[in-house]
Amino acid sequence: MSNTDKTPTPPYYAVIFTSVRTDGDNGYEKMAEKMVELASRQKGFLGIESARDKETGITVSYWDSLEAIKAWKEHTAHKAAQEKGQTDWYKHYKVRICRVERAYSFDQ
Amino acid sequence: MSNTDKTPTPPYYAVIFTSVRTDGDNGYEKMAEKMVELASRQKGFLGIESARDKETGITVSYWDSLEAIKAWKEHTAHKAAQEKGQTDWYKHYKVRICRVERAYSFDQ
Repeated sequence: MSNTDKTPTPPYYAVIFTSVRTDGDNGYEKMAEKMVELASRQKGFLGIESARDKETGITVSYWDSLEAIKAWKEHTAHKAAQEKGQTDWYKHYKVRICRVERAYSFDQ
Repeated sequence: MSNTDKTPTPPYYAVIFTSVRTDGDNGYEKMAEKMVELASRQKGFLGIESARDKETGITVSYWDSLEAIKAWKEHTAHKAAQEKGQTDWYKHYKVRICRVERAYSFDQ
């Protein structure tokens, strides 16, 4: 959950990344950590949430603009990770770029 | 991952539900299965993805309109589940309603 409740009042943007991994780690965990750390230092970054079970992984990152999402997609280190993603880590993934229109939360 | 690649070309809508559970099952798993089954029979439903690790759960459901999302939120059985969610199952949750603007995927 970490830093997601720092997201502001909508509208803002979300990137929903759903994936099915290949077998084995193949350097994935280390690179994933590095990418989260790097993403969180980008301009326009608002937060990230991630969960993975046996088959499916879902990571949602939040951004203040489509420009910030595009800049992160084109970031050199991130592009290298994307290439490794296609050759080594993922059987399948899907990326959805969304505009968050409304949000509400509950706390016990 | 199941049925998510049935989602059409954008635009469509996504509900991102992120949660932190209370300890123990407390009838959660059974109800969660029932809700997925029921949601998938609603008008305007396009797909659902879910992943949970030790702390965080993320479920994203996809819908063809805001009206379909509203109708599901107001569904009687779903409302009962939402109440149990607040009393028994969740320490925290956040709901974000989004418009999916773009999507792309990769398959090995």
